[in-house]
Amino acid sequence: MTDTTVTINLFNSLWVLLCGALVFLMTISVGLLEVGELGEGYRKSLRKTVIIICTGFFVMAAVGFNTAFAPCIGGLIGNPLYSAPFLGGFATDIPGVLQGIWWSMGPAFFNIGVTLPSYFFFETAFAAVTLALVGVIALRKMKLSSFCVFSVVYFVIIWNLPAAWIWNPTGWLYSIGMRDFAGGLVVHGAAAAAGLAIVLKIWQEEKKKGFVESPKVPVNVSPGWITIAVLLLWLGWFGFNPGSTLAWNASAGVVALTTFLCASTSFLSLMSFKYLETKKDPGLIYAANGILMGLIVITPIAGFVSPASSVVLGIICGPLYGYFERFFSKMRWFSDPVGLFPGHLVGGLFGVLMIAFFTQHPFAVASGNGNLPDGILFGGGTAAVQQLGIEALGIVAVMVTVFAISYITVWLIGKCMNGITTDYRKDDPLPAEPGK
Amino acid sequence: MTDTTVTINLFNSLWVLLCGALVFLMTISVGLLEVGELGEGYRKSLRKTVIIICTGFFVMAAVGFNTAFAPCIGGLIGNPLYSAPFLGGFATDIPGVLQGIWWSMGPAFFNIGVTLPSYFFFETAFAAVTLALVGVIALRKMKLSSFCVFSVVYFVIIWNLPAAWIWNPTGWLYSIGMRDFAGGLVVHGAAAAAGLAIVLKIWQEEKKKGFVESPKVPVNVSPGWITIAVLLLWLGWFGFNPGSTLAWNASAGVVALTTFLCASTSFLSLMSFKYLETKKDPGLIYAANGILMGLIVITPIAGFVSPASSVVLGIICGPLYGYFERFFSKMRWFSDPVGLFPGHLVGGLFGVLMIAFFTQHPFAVASGNGNLPDGILFGGGTAAVQQLGIEALGIVAVMVTVFAISYITVWLIGKCMNGITTDYRKDDPLPAEPGK
Amino acid sequence: MTDTTVTINLFNSLWVLLCGALVFLMTISVGLLEVGELGEGYRKSLRKTVIIICTGFFVMAAVGFNTAFAPCIGGLIGNPLYSAPFLGGFATDIPGVLQGIWWSMGPAFFNIGVTLPSYFFFETAFAAVTLALVGVIALRKMKLSSFCVFSVVYFVIIWNLPAAWIWNPTGWLYSIGMRDFAGGLVVHGAAAAAGLAIVLKIWQEEKKKGFVESPKVPVNVSPGWITIAVLLLWLGWFGFNPGSTLAWNASAGVVALTTFLCASTSFLSLMSFKYLETKKDPGLIYAANGILMGLIVITPIAGFVSPASSVVLGIICGPLYGYFERFFSKMRWFSDPVGLFPGHLVGGLFGVLMIAFFTQHPFAVASGNGNLPDGILFGGGTAAVQQLGIEALGIVAVMVTVFAISYITVWLIGKCMNGITTDYRKDDPLPAEPGK
Repeated sequence: MTDTTVTINLFNSLWVLLCGALVFLMTISVGLLEVGELGEGYRKSLRKTVIIICTGFFVMAAVGFNTAFAPCIGGLIGNPLYSAPFLGGFATDIPGVLQGIWWSMGPAFFNIGVTLPSYFFFETAFAAVTLALVGVIALRKMKLSSFCVFSVVYFVIIWNLPAAWIWNPTGWLYSIGMRDFAGGLVVHGAAAAAGLAIVLKIWQEEKKKGFVESPKVPVNVSPGWITIAVLLLWLGWFGFNPGSTLAWNASAGVVALTTFLCASTSFLSLMSFKYLETKKDPGLIYAANGILMGLIVITPIAGFVSPASSVVLGIICGPLYGYFERFFSKMRWFSDPVGLFPGHLVGGLFGVLMIAFFTQHPFAVASGNGNLPDGILFGGGTAAVQQLGIEALGIVAVMVTVFAISYITVWLIGKCMNGITTDYRKDDPLPAEPGK
Repeated sequence: MTDTTVTINLFNSLWVLLCGALVFLMTISVGLLEVGELGEGYRKSLRKTVIIICTGFFVMAAVGFNTAFAPCIGGLIGNPLYSAPFLGGFATDIPGVLQGIWWSMGPAFFNIGVTLPSYFFFETAFAAVTLALVGVIALRKMKLSSFCVFSVVYFVIIWNLPAAWIWNPTGWLYSIGMRDFAGGLVVHGAAAAAGLAIVLKIWQEEKKKGFVESPKVPVNVSPGWITIAVLLLWLGWFGFNPGSTLAWNASAGVVALTTFLCASTSFLSLMSFKYLETKKDPGLIYAANGILMGLIVITPIAGFVSPASSVVLGIICGPLYGYFERFFSKMRWFSDPVGLFPGHLVGGLFGVLMIAFFTQHPFAVASGNGNLPDGILFGGGTAAVQQLGIEALGIVAVMVTVFAISYITVWLIGKCMNGITTDYRKDDPLPAEPGK
Repeated sequence: MTDTTVTINLFNSLWVLLCGALVFLMTISVGLLEVGELGEGYRKSLRKTVIIICTGFFVMAAVGFNTAFAPCIGGLIGNPLYSAPFLGGFATDIPGVLQGIWWSMGPAFFNIGVTLPSYFFFETAFAAVTLALVGVIALRKMKLSSFCVFSVVYFVIIWNLPAAWIWNPTGWLYSIGMRDFAGGLVVHGAAAAAGLAIVLKIWQEEKKKGFVESPKVPVNVSPGWITIAVLLLWLGWFGFNPGSTLAWNASAGVVALTTFLCASTSFLSLMSFKYLETKKDPGLIYAANGILMGLIVITPIAGFVSPASSVVLGIICGPLYGYFERFFSKMRWFSDPVGLFPGHLVGGLFGVLMIAFFTQHPFAVASGNGNLPDGILFGGGTAAVQQLGIEALGIVAVMVTVFAISYITVWLIGKCMNGITTDYRKDDPLPAEPGK
């Protein structure tokens, strides 16, 4: 390698590892968000964060990194035996660890020379934060023991399939041209699909117990925790999106910009929307959800668009969230106190579809996605319409698969563990006073 | 460009963007500081933090970055039309974004090759944290709606003028040799000037209502929040000052050192000063203010002095804060529960003036400010005295301008919105118990 | 220097400074951990954090960095007069500051070109977090004034001797081949030795007052603070261990991996161990201690082992902590509410000894420790057994020395200040309700 290549590779590995640390912070922040929205005293929430992180690192190192990022078998799943468990076991010559290059980082594929530890760290933090999103929907209704078992399966195959299909250069969706910059589908959409499977199973168990409508989880907002959580999540997203270039290049800075602009605009948009609707101060929860909606929507597209497009997308976020929040609140068979569905489901999938509308080829090239055509709004024409079809196909494939595997998993868990539902009002009451 | 230049530019852009993320953390921390000093339950404080950040990114991208950092018209204000709104609109060939260099980063000016996104991100975080400082003085007395309108004006012109004059290489104060390393005047002094304008307007409205003295805002210290806030602010200052070299060079490390040493020494100095005065443990608020005073005083000069000078400056901080705190506490026409004036006003301006005393030419050269002569204490002689005059001129010009524009702004807001003052005791009472 | 050397040096200095910022975060986190474990209202804990940080930076810059990292006199202590106080006083030509290289960073020794500010910042953050660990054992029993005096001595000589012996290339233990990657002995073991000296002195004073057993410090767990503290500590450890390569090289990434894997595995191991023992949910405190035990055990060895070995070490952590926690809880002459002894003492020393068992030469070479032979489990044979002897010798030398100096120090402080013990029940009662 020339000196320049060595230098570029050092930059890329440094950038990805630092961004991984910020994504690690996001999983913590999701835990704090739950505490902020559902009541400070809720210990199970905090313990769940720790379980997710620790199980994530252990299982991803044991096998999950292979199933997601090793060369794919038939385009469907990374070879689970590609490297020995725990990134090569006790071997000292694993490509990409002390020397050499992980197969997909070489010139034949991404050509960015990121080391295996940096890549593993970053992607494992992604997997963990995805499960944390799933966890918020299960909060207070799913047994902690059932959730632990689900976690293991999650990091072996549920998170890994969409990653293998879309982020692995030998995955079938990647091969046909599907792109999802930082995980509108791989993270947010998939989290919502898994969450849907869990709430469906919970609802089936509740129905058997004679409920005609799913009991609402009580919310006990703690403004301090919620604000620190959202702002730290935002800081973490600074790693999540800009790190998804997997390289310290011109695109990484642009992504920081599109990410922060979309979040800021979305906040202003949702607050204005709610104010016009109610003529009242919308309050902290909407402030938080406005920022989050912007961050979610920009995630799959942040590396493909101009800063001005991110502002346009941010403006759309407000009414989009407001409309779908009302839509989902009419559902009587689940309780979504933290807005997983109007936020992560709607926002994530909407963002993925917008790739076909807002992409500008030069921005996509800079982030290493030169196959993407200009979007429909930027003269992409037929190629853009075709891209829309590819993205839609990817959405259907991932949502159906993740929902199905997740449902089978919780169904089996329910069989073995006598149901997955806990009665939080008896087993885990909220404390009378917060802070205990 | 040679390979070396490319590498250096990559380092500089990486450094500035990472430091920008830390400065982003500071705005969050200022919000937490308010919560810590004024009572945990104060929701408006947290919402204000979010409003400041989101308005800051939106307005700075729309026009404010131009008014501060585009080529100046007559040395007075950056050309607001220099680049299309949102850093070039939908264009893909903006210099400094995907390729090329932002005008002031080229060899003719700063010659550090920082990309536009890194530069924008860093400076916008600065603007946001400056308004957050203004916000603490208005806390609980100014209507949130009035503050929102003020924020927009703030990021269009109030923050931007001092930045254009002093940090833009075509600004008139920069041109005559004024330097302010990381914003003793551009940030702290200017925040205090804007804060003064607001408290004056509030006092005028209070007088009309028949008050003979401005009602004190009640303080309800929460030790957990205040400590985490100050320490995170300190961590954020690691980005604020060392990032202000705008380059990852030898000076950046020295600045980290002078910053941390001055803060540490200032804490020890203020605690000793108060202990000698009262013979009692000075308590947490003084611990916080001791650290902050050191951080503020070193800010304008951190890149120009030796580590030992930063210790000397830190020693001065204790009595300086102690004296001026007493001075300002005698004022009956405003309430300054968090010490904005003894801290940011006195500390910021004092630090700027100390440039003419403590600068050592080799340190200034390393941070890219080779025009600065040695200070009076280091044999600078006539040149140093002249520098003192330039710095004083800059202080007067900025303080008068920011105060005037801010006052006109709140006066107009008051006209349109039926006053800017809120009666927090009726409209926004503190909760009976914290944490709600 | 060639361009490549310059680039590598820039990377190394950047990496070390950023990691130093994360270690700074750890000291804050230790303070929050105390708050989380001992009750949110305990103001002294938070003030202590600030005192430790500020005294650390001041005293280390004044003299302590010299006693640890200047060329050693007789292998025993760094020359305290090597550079003028505060890293060269007012001089502008200190090697390693604006130009040149700190002696030990040159080709004759570590050959990594880290600048003096980066190195100072990183090591001072280490010293501060070590004293923070000592502080938790003294919490609520030692007068704050006595602790302040102890802090000064601590940063002049107590922290510095082990650092000079083991991390300074002219120290006697380094010279005979002792290695301690990120401070199993220099940080955790030494902190426990100093803590033991303090609890012994406290117990002697308590006995004089007629106690037959040391009063237990009451624990008042705050789940929010404890979780955020442990997770931020973990994030900080991302700087602590990977930064201890003092270079952005292949090893740094591997260390991030071994660190996170050992912590995750240790959590799973301790939770399983306690669950099998009690058949009950072990709760948050064990979750925290499981993570911390893994982080402590991997610290001295993180740069010498494969990822799979870190998993093996993590599995051992659970029963190791569980056993020694019971062992220490039988002691009646001190109160160790936060598990300093089963965690930092046992874990730190155990990790150091494991160097002789688990080291794999290629990993040690990558982290700059090419003298280390393969461990006993990897065919190291006689050389590994000899290494075991060297590590054991180092442990004895450091533990005895730190305990002795610490005891003499607190004994002298007790003489001058009329004892070091405070009666927290009278002088510093816990608040009736948390959060005040």
